[in-house]
Amino acid sequence: MTEIDRILDANAAWVAQFPGSRPVRPARHVAVVACMDSRMPLFPLLGLEVGDAHVIRNAGGVVTEDTLRSLTISQHLLGTRETVLVHHTDCGMQKTDDAGLADLVEAATGHRPPWVGRTFTDVDDDVRESLRLLRATPYLLSHEVRGTVYDVTTGALREVV
Amino acid sequence: MTEIDRILDANAAWVAQFPGSRPVRPARHVAVVACMDSRMPLFPLLGLEVGDAHVIRNAGGVVTEDTLRSLTISQHLLGTRETVLVHHTDCGMQKTDDAGLADLVEAATGHRPPWVGRTFTDVDDDVRESLRLLRATPYLLSHEVRGTVYDVTTGALREVV
Repeated sequence: MTEIDRILDANAAWVAQFPGSRPVRPARHVAVVACMDSRMPLFPLLGLEVGDAHVIRNAGGVVTEDTLRSLTISQHLLGTRETVLVHHTDCGMQKTDDAGLADLVEAATGHRPPWVGRTFTDVDDDVRESLRLLRATPYLLSHEVRGTVYDVTTGALREVV
Repeated sequence: MTEIDRILDANAAWVAQFPGSRPVRPARHVAVVACMDSRMPLFPLLGLEVGDAHVIRNAGGVVTEDTLRSLTISQHLLGTRETVLVHHTDCGMQKTDDAGLADLVEAATGHRPPWVGRTFTDVDDDVRESLRLLRATPYLLSHEVRGTVYDVTTGALREVV
């Protein structure tokens, strides 16, 4: 059985305990921007219930054009007004650099990716850079944003100030 | 109290039940690409445990350059080999079109966004388009990808074939 079949089977347990319908607009008017890391189940980790907050995730939890597209839709169409960033310790993005990543991909497939990897070395610095990028985006409705780092060895969230 | 303060407070409950450290490489070698919608807590919904799978999310769960950047890092650096797409019913992306979204943002802020919104009308069609885009990306290591639609009124996941 492949993992997708296992996932489709597992969904039956969720249906059996399904908490019911919620509106499309997030109840707490919050959007989270987090890394894709497999060790962060964001709903229990942040105390979120079904229907509370948008969850945007990518490699690193960095602010890209797609992050801005998602946050714009979140704010303008669906009413969120606060954004919380979640980076974390021991991130895959700290294990190489942009040139090293492109070299690795080209060596394995013969194709060099047409984008920059957005790797980083210091996680606090990248949170601060993400805060700066969001605050500098003129077409967002709200610039109320704060940044955190999650410790994957303890489960604790720390705000970056 | 703002929502971020509420989130930082709620994290203490997670720390108290923290299941322990896991490796950075996802145990089940799976990446999920899903919509940011607030009604999808993907870990219980898909039967995932902490450390099992990467979770990439944006407005719509669509395949953008940033989705491809994240999946490339997921596969080349961190060993995932299957991808599961999760779109859903009653999506915000079906409530406007790309020009309407840009008009709305410009009217509210005076700035027209420099990207396309990637709204869609038929969710099954957008899953199929996402499958096509992933399969056509030459620098991914694995093209093992399947697509689903989540029903926000029942909790059930349906594969799109």
